[in-house]
Amino acid sequence: MTRGRRAVSIIGATGLVGSEIARLLHKRKFPLSELLLFSSGRTPERETTLGGRRYEIGRFGPVDVFRSDICFLAAGGEYSRQHAWLIARTGCIVIDNSSALRMHPHVPLVVPEVNSADLRSHMGVIANPNCSTIQMVVALAPLHRQWGLKRVIVSTYQSVSGAGLRATGELAAQSSSLLEGTATAPDVFEHPIGFNLIPQIDAFDDEGWTREERKMANETGKILGDKSIDVVATAVRVPVFRGHSEAVYAEFDRPVDLAAARRLLKTAPGVVVEDDPSRSIYPTPLGCVGKDDTFVGRLRLVADHPNALCMWIVSDNLLKGAALNAVQIAEELTSKR
Amino acid sequence: MTRGRRAVSIIGATGLVGSEIARLLHKRKFPLSELLLFSSGRTPERETTLGGRRYEIGRFGPVDVFRSDICFLAAGGEYSRQHAWLIARTGCIVIDNSSALRMHPHVPLVVPEVNSADLRSHMGVIANPNCSTIQMVVALAPLHRQWGLKRVIVSTYQSVSGAGLRATGELAAQSSSLLEGTATAPDVFEHPIGFNLIPQIDAFDDEGWTREERKMANETGKILGDKSIDVVATAVRVPVFRGHSEAVYAEFDRPVDLAAARRLLKTAPGVVVEDDPSRSIYPTPLGCVGKDDTFVGRLRLVADHPNALCMWIVSDNLLKGAALNAVQIAEELTSKR
Repeated sequence: MTRGRRAVSIIGATGLVGSEIARLLHKRKFPLSELLLFSSGRTPERETTLGGRRYEIGRFGPVDVFRSDICFLAAGGEYSRQHAWLIARTGCIVIDNSSALRMHPHVPLVVPEVNSADLRSHMGVIANPNCSTIQMVVALAPLHRQWGLKRVIVSTYQSVSGAGLRATGELAAQSSSLLEGTATAPDVFEHPIGFNLIPQIDAFDDEGWTREERKMANETGKILGDKSIDVVATAVRVPVFRGHSEAVYAEFDRPVDLAAARRLLKTAPGVVVEDDPSRSIYPTPLGCVGKDDTFVGRLRLVADHPNALCMWIVSDNLLKGAALNAVQIAEELTSKR
Repeated sequence: MTRGRRAVSIIGATGLVGSEIARLLHKRKFPLSELLLFSSGRTPERETTLGGRRYEIGRFGPVDVFRSDICFLAAGGEYSRQHAWLIARTGCIVIDNSSALRMHPHVPLVVPEVNSADLRSHMGVIANPNCSTIQMVVALAPLHRQWGLKRVIVSTYQSVSGAGLRATGELAAQSSSLLEGTATAPDVFEHPIGFNLIPQIDAFDDEGWTREERKMANETGKILGDKSIDVVATAVRVPVFRGHSEAVYAEFDRPVDLAAARRLLKTAPGVVVEDDPSRSIYPTPLGCVGKDDTFVGRLRLVADHPNALCMWIVSDNLLKGAALNAVQIAEELTSKR
C-alpha cells in the first residue's frame, strides 16, 4: 500500500467496537479520503456525528466496499467468515475484529507493538486478536524476549462490554433491579451478571474448555511466534462495564529478575507500570477506561520458583483490546508500505 | 468436654459473621443452655430476635464469659489477640474467626470435613480459617488424599461481604450512584468497588504479596498437614455482595483421572459438583448464597500436564467460609468429646 489518503469502510459501525474504530480514526487523524459506515444489517440505518461531520450509516451490500482501501470488519464471526475474503478480492485490505480467521495460516494475527513484521505476509485479510490475548501479549512480549516464556496460567476478569451493547444494558438493568430488591431474568448471558460472576465466555468444547480460553492459548502462540508456549486460561465474566483484568502467573526458561522485569515493562511500547503497593497503587478497570495503554501492576516473584513472575494486567477492552489495536494495524499499513 | 447443653457466647454478634453464627446455632439446633450475645464495643447495644426469642446484645466485659462453655470470637484480629487466651483461661473454649492466632503452633486450624482430628490437641483456642482457604481445602482435600497435592495457583474473586457490613453498604451505594451517572468516593475500600475490581485484600508485605494471599498459602499447608504444598494466590475483590469464587489450577504428585476426580468430589463431605458445560451448569456466587456447601465446577484436564486439574470453586463466604465452619467446629467438640 502506498502513502496517501485512504478510503476506509467500517462494517458493524453501530456496535461498540465499530463505533470506537470510527471515533479513533478521527481522533488519531487517520489520513482518510473517505469514511463509509455500514451496519451489518441487524440494526436499522441511522446517522452519526464524528469530528463535527454527519455520517449516514447504511446497510452494507458488497458492492459498496469496492471504493475502500481498508475495510474494518466488526460485525461478528459469521459475517466475517462469509465476507472477509470476498471483500479482500476487490483489492481492499480487511482488518477483521472477529475470531473467524485468526488461526488461518495465511492471515497474520497482529499486535503492532509485538509482531508488526507479520503484516508483510498478508494476503488481503489481517486479524485483530482477542481482547484478553492482546493485553496479555503486550505485557508478556518484552519479558518473553528477555527470558523465554514457557508457560502462563491466567485467570481473566472480563467486563460485559466484551459481549456488546445489549450486554452492557443487561448489567445496568439487572444491577438496578437487584438494588431495588427485585430480580430480572438473564437474556444476553446464560446467568444473571448483576452482582454475580459467570465462568463462561463463548461456547464449551468437549474437554470442558471455552472457546475464549482456547483463543488465549492459540493466539498467544501465534502472536509470539512460539507455539510451544503453554497457556492455561480460566475466562470469567465479571460485573464491570468496561476494562478487562487478568491475574497472570508466568513461567520462563530462565530466572527472572524483578527489577529488570519492571524496567523492561516501563520501556515497553503500549505498557504503563502502575505498581506501588505501599500506596495501594495498581491498575483497576475503572481507572483504565478510555486509556490507550495496557496497565501492569502487582509484580511479584514466587518463592522457590525463580523462573516465575506474577502480575495483574488491565486494559480497556474496547480500545487496545479491540478498536485501537485494529486502527494501529491500519496505521502500520499506511505508514510503512 | 462432656455431652449435654452448653452455655455459648458470641462476641461481635452484631457483625455479618457473628449474627450468622447466632442464626446457625438456632437453625441447626445446637444444644444451648444459654446464648449470650455481645458487641465488641464498637456498635451500640441493641436487641435481636432468634428462633422467636428476643436477645439483648450487651457490651462485652471479660467477666461475663465466665458463664460460657464455648465462646465465638468474631470481633476482628486485634480483639482476638487481646482476649482469646484470657477467655480460654476461664475454661471456656474459644473458636476464633480472626486471623490473629491461626498460625500459632498450639492453635488447631480446623475445617471439620478435612482435619477434625486436629481438634484433639487444642489448648482452649481453636482457629477458624480464612474464608478463601476453607472452600479451597474442602474441594482439594479429597484430591490431595488421592494424588498428593504439590502446587496450587489460584485467583480469587471475593465478595464485599468478606470486608463486613459497611463494605456491602459501600458497594450498594456506589453502584446506585454510578447507575445514576454520579461517582461517590471510596471509604471502606482503597478504590471504588462499584462496577470495578480491587486486586488488594488486606495489607501488602515487602515482597508485594497481600496478607490474604499469604494466608491462603500458609493456612492450606497447616490444614492439609503438608507445608511443602506451594500455594500461589492472587486475591481480588469483585463487585459481588456475597459468595467467594476461585479459579484453581492444581498440580499433583501423580497423574489425575478426571472421572475419578469427579467421583471423589461427588462423595466428599460438604462438596457439591455442579459441572455440566453443555447446559451452562457451573457454580456462580449468586447461586450459592445461603447454601452450606462448597460448589465445584469447570473441572478440566490440562493438555501435556497429566498431573494438573483446573476447577472453579464457589461458596458462601459468610457460611462455610466463616460462620458455618465455626459452628461445625463447636458441633464436633460437643458430639465427640
